Amino acid sequence: MSQNVPYKTYLTEDELPTHYYNVRADMKVGHAPILHPGTLQPVTVADMEPIFCTELAKQELNTEDRFIEIPEQVRAFYRMYRPSPLVRAYHLEKALGTPAKLYYKYEGGNTSGSHKLNSAIAQAYYAKEQGLTGLTTETGAGQWGSALSMACVYFDLELEVYMVRVSSEQKPYRKVLMETYGAQVIASPSDTTSIGRTMLENPENQGGSLGTAISEAVEVAVTSEGKRYVLGSVLNQVLLHQSIIGIEAKKALEKLDEYPDMVIGCAGGGSNLGGLMSAFMEDKLAGRTAPHFIAVEPASCPSMTRGRFAYDFCDTGQVTPLAKMYTLGHAFMPSPSHAGGLRFHGMSPILSQLFHDGFIDEARAVDQVSVFQAAEIFARAEGTLPAPESSHAIRAAIDEALKCKETGEQKTILFGLSGNGYFDLAAYQQYNEGTLTDRVPTDEDLERGLATIPSLPGIQ
Amino acid sequence: MSQNVPYKTYLTEDELPTHYYNVRADMKVGHAPILHPGTLQPVTVADMEPIFCTELAKQELNTEDRFIEIPEQVRAFYRMYRPSPLVRAYHLEKALGTPAKLYYKYEGGNTSGSHKLNSAIAQAYYAKEQGLTGLTTETGAGQWGSALSMACVYFDLELEVYMVRVSSEQKPYRKVLMETYGAQVIASPSDTTSIGRTMLENPENQGGSLGTAISEAVEVAVTSEGKRYVLGSVLNQVLLHQSIIGIEAKKALEKLDEYPDMVIGCAGGGSNLGGLMSAFMEDKLAGRTAPHFIAVEPASCPSMTRGRFAYDFCDTGQVTPLAKMYTLGHAFMPSPSHAGGLRFHGMSPILSQLFHDGFIDEARAVDQVSVFQAAEIFARAEGTLPAPESSHAIRAAIDEALKCKETGEQKTILFGLSGNGYFDLAAYQQYNEGTLTDRVPTDEDLERGLATIPSLPGIQ
Repeated sequence: MSQNVPYKTYLTEDELPTHYYNVRADMKVGHAPILHPGTLQPVTVADMEPIFCTELAKQELNTEDRFIEIPEQVRAFYRMYRPSPLVRAYHLEKALGTPAKLYYKYEGGNTSGSHKLNSAIAQAYYAKEQGLTGLTTETGAGQWGSALSMACVYFDLELEVYMVRVSSEQKPYRKVLMETYGAQVIASPSDTTSIGRTMLENPENQGGSLGTAISEAVEVAVTSEGKRYVLGSVLNQVLLHQSIIGIEAKKALEKLDEYPDMVIGCAGGGSNLGGLMSAFMEDKLAGRTAPHFIAVEPASCPSMTRGRFAYDFCDTGQVTPLAKMYTLGHAFMPSPSHAGGLRFHGMSPILSQLFHDGFIDEARAVDQVSVFQAAEIFARAEGTLPAPESSHAIRAAIDEALKCKETGEQKTILFGLSGNGYFDLAAYQQYNEGTLTDRVPTDEDLERGLATIPSLPGIQ
Repeated sequence: MSQNVPYKTYLTEDELPTHYYNVRADMKVGHAPILHPGTLQPVTVADMEPIFCTELAKQELNTEDRFIEIPEQVRAFYRMYRPSPLVRAYHLEKALGTPAKLYYKYEGGNTSGSHKLNSAIAQAYYAKEQGLTGLTTETGAGQWGSALSMACVYFDLELEVYMVRVSSEQKPYRKVLMETYGAQVIASPSDTTSIGRTMLENPENQGGSLGTAISEAVEVAVTSEGKRYVLGSVLNQVLLHQSIIGIEAKKALEKLDEYPDMVIGCAGGGSNLGGLMSAFMEDKLAGRTAPHFIAVEPASCPSMTRGRFAYDFCDTGQVTPLAKMYTLGHAFMPSPSHAGGLRFHGMSPILSQLFHDGFIDEARAVDQVSVFQAAEIFARAEGTLPAPESSHAIRAAIDEALKCKETGEQKTILFGLSGNGYFDLAAYQQYNEGTLTDRVPTDEDLERGLATIPSLPGIQ
């Protein structure tokens, strides 16, 4: 078969998935409930409604429905850039001299540059359906903010993006991109919120942090008429929307008479890996033959490989609910030398549970320099310049392909190419000049972070 | 039929064109011969061989072969990003409220960001086949240099890119991109060539110009063992390679049972328009029903609408051959306020002849601010952020669609989206901030340029 496999396999638009897959409904052991930070009781839809759109709050807690229909208006938007291509990496295979068959699902072929758009458009749709007038969010590197800007202008929603000030200064063009799509981008901390004004009193806080940006975006959402807050990763609803990646990938592989031996994804908050593996995890949860799943995280922010499986806050500021997840402690901060995303201290509760229970077979932490080495090999062989985040998955895929070269095994490896690297050329420049480094946390660094995990008497 | 037209139509990889189409072979009146600048005699392959690859020199002068086979190794590379999608702009149609059917052929879905890669890979292939070790070129905005970097690393060729110093400082990330693909990028004027050293003696020349960069790249090519010079636009060989755009577009439209009433392309040196219209021009030259062809150029560099059809040098420095073309005079310089490409003082000799003889029906000059207005409308409706160059075609397509809205005509309009705008966000920023302007040449500006067109006794 593989002789006739094209470089790129596109499903037709008629084959665009009609439903998201809700992996939680198939998990015999679900993740521990999300707890209200005040009462330490499981959060309810009513608890979440002041912050989130009602339908999204329901999706967040949905453990019943295996499939949730994708609204037709969301599908109409998806048709502009989906189904995304499944690519056979023939040129990379040749460059490596491996007998392995490498496939990647490419999600960077849209102007937002990444898979984030898959969830952004769904979240904007539900907001519009609810009659809201606008949304608020935060962004760090800017991928999520860009995606949400595209989604909001499409549904004629206002959007305020709180962008970490340091990032907005380092990546001015991300700001321009968002503004071109009609968003209002505010450097955080700002004087538009009471939290922001408080933070600004201390000069040390001027540069901002994701935690502060979240707090500002949430404050605006809950104090404004007709607005809600949205988030691009970690949440169950996001994994639900991203399941479209894996559903498409599986269907495309079926057309080629292929089934992966391995599925590899980068893991920060978990949205890309969670989405890519979803349809294959369905097989594993049902006890059928399934791939070996590998989560790849940065050595500088190693929640799955060096964190603790425990209840923790989702934000530095301790205003969000608590989730049971692999966490480095909510006060853990990865080194500033770490490029791009994958900086979250925790991991999606769903992925955490699946990893804890052995359904995700392996987590692997990789060093930043080796990640950029892999990115360069990939770019030169396959043309596309990968995002640093995605290049974590490329690193592991190359390593596995090289193992196959030694053993002679012809494994079929699927990995996620979650985005392109157009906005990450400052990091590529450092790599090209030999000044890119990585700072892996010492045991002492880790201990300091882990010590911030709250102790909750009676709750495990 | 159109009810069932998908958003994106992809040909299969088996349907990838096997041959380029050489429009010159079908032109009853070919363009006037290219003249040697020293002898004023028509240039021969032997004249060109010290500068260009031999096969490319032959292609440059080929008026016989209607079809030229695409080498299999080039097709293998094309399969990474081609066939490129033909997109039905449903969302743009809806935003405009037009009965017109808008289609665009999108060439920006590769890391170089534009259609330039189509010719870059072919040129690199012929260089490799000839046993050369490297290539030299110049780049302004950087699209061509990026494309050629990808092509050269693929065929393991060295590449030296002379980048106009001002551009290399304004677009540092373009340089990083090229370096990531293994190219050596030298800010021009440089001290690596005798021409460069001469230019550097005058501080006024420090910022560089495309003319100087060309001169440096040519000097290195002719004085180095195993190297040749390559160029990404204007030349006949480039139009030949770019014909793949139109061949694919026509075939995809046939699948949809469609044939365009209009074909619209932006025109700087002519490579995108020439490529897009090629297969449809074949119909026109054969006397069959054909579209109305519109070339869209910037009002700040209006070679077809305000230039003269005459012999002129292709470069400011008067070292290249003379071509009969629409020209503003080789000393004409568009205003620095003009963003992006489409800054060449002349126009492809083939397109010039076709326009002169009425085969290209119309040339239209559009103002920069209206171009960015069109770009914004397009981005918000269709998602993709367009390159400023491509947005000239979008401007005209929108204007035609709005005429259809008035008349009720359901015209089928095909336009070229030659690239994405990721590297043009500085210009978008100016537009968003209201500081983007345009400077259309006055009659006096034009006269100064036109006065530099050489007077050649006995040659018309």
